Amino acid sequence: MTLSADAIVAVSQRMERFAEDRLAEADELGPDAVSFARSAADTIDGGKRLRARFCLTGWQAVADAGSGRPALPGDDVVAAAGALEIFHAAALVHDDLIDNSDTRRGRPAAHRALEAAHGAAGWNGPSAVFGRSAAILLGDLLVAWSDDLFEEGLRAAPHAASARAEYARMRRDVTVGQYLDIAEEAAAATVPDDEHAGRALRVATFKSARYSVQQPLTIGAALAGASEAQRDALARFGLPLGLAFQLRDDVLGVFGDSAVTGKPSGDDLREGKRTLLIAYARETVTAGARRIIDELLGDPALDDQQIASLQRTIVDSGALERVEQLIARYAGEADRALSGAALDNAAVGALRDLARAAVARAA
Amino acid sequence: MTLSADAIVAVSQRMERFAEDRLAEADELGPDAVSFARSAADTIDGGKRLRARFCLTGWQAVADAGSGRPALPGDDVVAAAGALEIFHAAALVHDDLIDNSDTRRGRPAAHRALEAAHGAAGWNGPSAVFGRSAAILLGDLLVAWSDDLFEEGLRAAPHAASARAEYARMRRDVTVGQYLDIAEEAAAATVPDDEHAGRALRVATFKSARYSVQQPLTIGAALAGASEAQRDALARFGLPLGLAFQLRDDVLGVFGDSAVTGKPSGDDLREGKRTLLIAYARETVTAGARRIIDELLGDPALDDQQIASLQRTIVDSGALERVEQLIARYAGEADRALSGAALDNAAVGALRDLARAAVARAA
Repeated sequence: MTLSADAIVAVSQRMERFAEDRLAEADELGPDAVSFARSAADTIDGGKRLRARFCLTGWQAVADAGSGRPALPGDDVVAAAGALEIFHAAALVHDDLIDNSDTRRGRPAAHRALEAAHGAAGWNGPSAVFGRSAAILLGDLLVAWSDDLFEEGLRAAPHAASARAEYARMRRDVTVGQYLDIAEEAAAATVPDDEHAGRALRVATFKSARYSVQQPLTIGAALAGASEAQRDALARFGLPLGLAFQLRDDVLGVFGDSAVTGKPSGDDLREGKRTLLIAYARETVTAGARRIIDELLGDPALDDQQIASLQRTIVDSGALERVEQLIARYAGEADRALSGAALDNAAVGALRDLARAAVARAA
Repeated sequence: MTLSADAIVAVSQRMERFAEDRLAEADELGPDAVSFARSAADTIDGGKRLRARFCLTGWQAVADAGSGRPALPGDDVVAAAGALEIFHAAALVHDDLIDNSDTRRGRPAAHRALEAAHGAAGWNGPSAVFGRSAAILLGDLLVAWSDDLFEEGLRAAPHAASARAEYARMRRDVTVGQYLDIAEEAAAATVPDDEHAGRALRVATFKSARYSVQQPLTIGAALAGASEAQRDALARFGLPLGLAFQLRDDVLGVFGDSAVTGKPSGDDLREGKRTLLIAYARETVTAGARRIIDELLGDPALDDQQIASLQRTIVDSGALERVEQLIARYAGEADRALSGAALDNAAVGALRDLARAAVARAA
């Protein structure tokens, strides 16, 4: 892909500079405020920077469309890309709390790190309760940070209003999507079997496809002053790609090689995720097999044999094949959306590369 | 006070219109999304609208300063006042979760309402866990809403940038203040006795005085295009008033008449709040009495006799007297800050009325 590695480095540096300013600000409020700000800074370190990449490439696709020569990303798009990453860090802090996850990116999840700090300081009360309370506030602080960095970038931006509107929509959508996700899991038993697939796709649309791919692209495009046609082409590319991306994630969550993904094989089965893969499987198996799926799914103590048996049921039901076909269909749809669009050729090539990598990946 | 009742009604109507738009938007995403949006709308109904009042009056103090005649508040300040109330609703949702509070404004706290809805729907899994998870997301959604309403108002605002900066600072400050509050409670035993008072005042400054009074005033003033001198006068009024307000709250939390406050007498003692009142009391009592305070404070099962004994200890220590003197001193400071300021006379009168009422109140 042509998106220069420099641009991603610039985003990380912008985030670090922003975090430094926040740490200096916290210094006035004493050591506890500083350690809280430092916890926030820790969460924005690392990750694949997927959303930043889509934001930068969406910007590039529009900014370079006229000249065909690479423009230098200004602070508006660099800050916006960083803001998306900080917002994502906030979402993960609250997500890990909701999912009760102990680790994130190979390190303790934020609430567990805050719990450990409480214990190490010899503070009163149960450390776990403190960790969870502090993590709620840490997520809130990160949301504020993401907005602040976004707005810093918009100060001299020529297209602030449309970028701001895209960003606001993204925030509402993902929060509702996260709620639909937990509601989906809770409601599964009360929902008619033939509605599961549609509901799983709806969650994937709002929690993943729009949030992780489509909206970062359109935010970047908005900052470059995209025409409606340019914005639409990117949106029509981003949505199916985001769905393909999420469905690949679902497949890897059930069939992924733990040596490659870094997560135990069948992790999504133990977590009980109600993905499209599961919905499809439940549609075609016998009532008896459906009961077994429902019983096993979400049991954190599933052993390797039970995982293997569930995997076999999903394959035999034809669900894996159907999801793979859908991934291919969405990938094709994404590809076609860019054909003939008034976008920079190099950026379109980069987007197609990103799409291929996202759909074919094994981790 | 001269702030027209119409202005507060306009704020509530603006919030309702905004919530209607969000409900319509959620409609596309199905009934679960609608019920989630409805939960959000429920939380912004009611309350004293304290922050909206300060925002409107801060605006009025500057907007009418030249003409001396009441200007009609535009959508910028009406939306900002509503945004502050929605932001506060978000903070309360997360606060109630952190404090494990069952009720809010005489109704079930958000996480308890969401828990009940889960049970009523016959969904899977423990209702309490669902309620807490959904409330984390509900607070997140309300933060997004508050920003969105604020930005709607700024669309045609002449002084958007400075108002936005004040608002951003408010959000960071209150979140850090909330963290300092829980850290304070947890760290109490490890902090030298002579630092308690200073730390309690710092929490009161960030979590209450700046957030509830000073920053709403300066946000309103910024929207009216305040000069630096006007902004400073309002800020110098708002901070001590906010502190006086919080200290009055602390006194009522320990000595308030439950028939007037609507909360059980001595509620703050059962909750273990580390207020200035407690810090002052601990400074002067004997080591034995200090140990008893530390043992009893934060025990939810304290009976009436134990509450009465703690109340007596606080009075006898001179702490109540000292706090009352401080309230009077802060109130005087607030009053003087407005003298000679280039602000509208009617608004200054209204602010002085608000100050007197806040400091003298019994609930």
